[in-house]
Amino acid sequence: MSISSARPPQSPTDPLRLSQRASLVEPFHAMDVFAAAGRARQAGVDVISLAVGQPADPAPTAVREAAMAKAAEGRVSYTNALGLDMLRQAIADHYRDFYGVTIPASRVAVTSGSSAGFNLAFLALFDHGDRVAITRPGYPAYRNILAVLGLEVEEISTAETGYLTADSLREAHARKPLKGLLFASPANPTGASMPDDALQEIVEVAAELGIALISDEIYHRLNYSRPDVTAAAFSDDVVIINSFSKYYCMTGWRIGWMILPERLVRPVERLAQSLYISASEISQIAAAQAFHCSEELDVIRLRYQQSRELMMDALPRLGLPLLAPMDGAFYAYCDISAYSEDSQAFARTMLDETGVAASTGIDFDPIEGHKSLRFSYCEKPERVAEAMERLKDWLNAG
Amino acid sequence: MSISSARPPQSPTDPLRLSQRASLVEPFHAMDVFAAAGRARQAGVDVISLAVGQPADPAPTAVREAAMAKAAEGRVSYTNALGLDMLRQAIADHYRDFYGVTIPASRVAVTSGSSAGFNLAFLALFDHGDRVAITRPGYPAYRNILAVLGLEVEEISTAETGYLTADSLREAHARKPLKGLLFASPANPTGASMPDDALQEIVEVAAELGIALISDEIYHRLNYSRPDVTAAAFSDDVVIINSFSKYYCMTGWRIGWMILPERLVRPVERLAQSLYISASEISQIAAAQAFHCSEELDVIRLRYQQSRELMMDALPRLGLPLLAPMDGAFYAYCDISAYSEDSQAFARTMLDETGVAASTGIDFDPIEGHKSLRFSYCEKPERVAEAMERLKDWLNAG
Repeated sequence: MSISSARPPQSPTDPLRLSQRASLVEPFHAMDVFAAAGRARQAGVDVISLAVGQPADPAPTAVREAAMAKAAEGRVSYTNALGLDMLRQAIADHYRDFYGVTIPASRVAVTSGSSAGFNLAFLALFDHGDRVAITRPGYPAYRNILAVLGLEVEEISTAETGYLTADSLREAHARKPLKGLLFASPANPTGASMPDDALQEIVEVAAELGIALISDEIYHRLNYSRPDVTAAAFSDDVVIINSFSKYYCMTGWRIGWMILPERLVRPVERLAQSLYISASEISQIAAAQAFHCSEELDVIRLRYQQSRELMMDALPRLGLPLLAPMDGAFYAYCDISAYSEDSQAFARTMLDETGVAASTGIDFDPIEGHKSLRFSYCEKPERVAEAMERLKDWLNAG
Repeated sequence: MSISSARPPQSPTDPLRLSQRASLVEPFHAMDVFAAAGRARQAGVDVISLAVGQPADPAPTAVREAAMAKAAEGRVSYTNALGLDMLRQAIADHYRDFYGVTIPASRVAVTSGSSAGFNLAFLALFDHGDRVAITRPGYPAYRNILAVLGLEVEEISTAETGYLTADSLREAHARKPLKGLLFASPANPTGASMPDDALQEIVEVAAELGIALISDEIYHRLNYSRPDVTAAAFSDDVVIINSFSKYYCMTGWRIGWMILPERLVRPVERLAQSLYISASEISQIAAAQAFHCSEELDVIRLRYQQSRELMMDALPRLGLPLLAPMDGAFYAYCDISAYSEDSQAFARTMLDETGVAASTGIDFDPIEGHKSLRFSYCEKPERVAEAMERLKDWLNAG
């Protein structure tokens, strides 16, 4: 085969000019810390990573076994765009068993992680130029996906109560009408969760104002302050997004789900056919076992709870007060302003001098994030304790 | 837990109004045939499915073994958004070994199937309202993804030569300037492939006209008419999209890759972080073994070749002439106008009366597709032969 090495002539315009929408996307600074921690570890440093929201434990036994069996067979195929029937049914059963809420399997869409769920929900509901509210601080991918899809992002601060209130939603809508609202409880990066009545009020006010509601429930089953309540309990018109990544310890499997209002099912199916075809069939088959593994997973949850108590006690003593209650998820979101107003520099120095990696607030809050850090506590409790000890020595010496 | 069953009050506007962009997305009619075939099979019909482009064979042994080992270990994590280093390196090595083209691993992005590759390429390169050309007939997801992203789709007919020519590109650009062009060789649904010089000319003309080029090479290694040549051989500025789904028999694993121009690497990484986080780690680890499995996979390829010869001979005799040369992939694209001008009704009746499932042309060609069908020949040769026999009896009796 003859290969020409000749480059085409210089073009009059630049075909590879980056799109404006892509230039709106911020990198995940957490991923940069993650990479720096990896380099430090390779250089022999005993790094304790509290930077990424990724369980230290493997997927539960029955999940692993189902995946092995399917991998051994090897005929791993496209599935229906909405997922395998048996997984959709298992998810519907979970709503009945865990929440006491009836959801027909036909309203379940299996997705390639919650990432796909957000994208599909936004595409189904919002047009270029529509205005969608999220909370600040919040998961950075929300903002980035909304921005690349040409949506106007309105950030509603949750600094006052820790969670979104109906009043702040009304205010934001009064400033300029909202087409949609996406919120999470328990939330990332704060861990704060909403009381049931506050959640119900948001559902009702959104319906009253004609705002499409997307409830990110990825940190359900990791709430230490109150029982989990799904927004699906209050209305069939809320889009629910969830995933097997967190409680179920299945991050790298890329498998999640949506509960859809009936009339969004077909449109989301059509979108998913073109944009994803389907989620990994191995991950789907494996995930169907996850709901039977609560005993194994609750042991891990108990460890998070220990680490949480440890951190909740230690961080304020270190001069790093919590910016929100640590109700759930596996995060502590702290004010570092006693030491620094540059969270990125602070995180880098902390990693260099103590081997402890955390996420900088600027991922989650473009306005106030230079004064905050997020520590995750899904590492083993003894490692979390060791991290707090190192920080104590470091901050006292500083 | 108390669950309110009260529905929120009727809203003044409709929050769940489908977005205009979502309403532009057509369903995959192939998937509907797929579902109808499944129902027929469950009802006891001996269905021969020639409808979906999915190899009948399992993934190769070394791929399955790597997946089993990783599943057994179970610590399946997020990876870098661009993929595991070892897989990126394996892909770069493949370009050296198979094509004789040097691609640094840093230019490789691992994706959740080629589906993610298209979405990432479009988002990185094109803004709302930009005009992007594809070929007609062509893979329907191209059109659908472009449409939901607010891009204007220009379809260039390949009816005359079977493949895209530089002249037709110049004409389309002269009518109204193009920002981008996406094409595939071998192509879906036709199987037609471009001669090397035609490919090189497209690369050069696109550069001259300032058109960003995306080359879909998913059907490489399944070309029976000429050696595979990657567009990356002619320019470092072409975005290459490929996948482990077809030749490597890994559809349901959802794993593919892109070769990116150097300066698109970071932007695509940032987009992928927010939109996908990463591809499945199990699939990544498994896919890294795929390049060592050519011996096993070439046996399968040989079977496709047998089926291809069989079909290439049979279909025209049945009054179903080919609309393009069956150079590669595993498709025959036929003119059914001797029997029907309604390919959907024809496909349905054919399935009902013969048990043979094929895809209707309307998936691939909104203008001429009512007169065409796509038969895939990745089924076993004896099944393909049986399908041709059944069609013969059916069409002769009709």
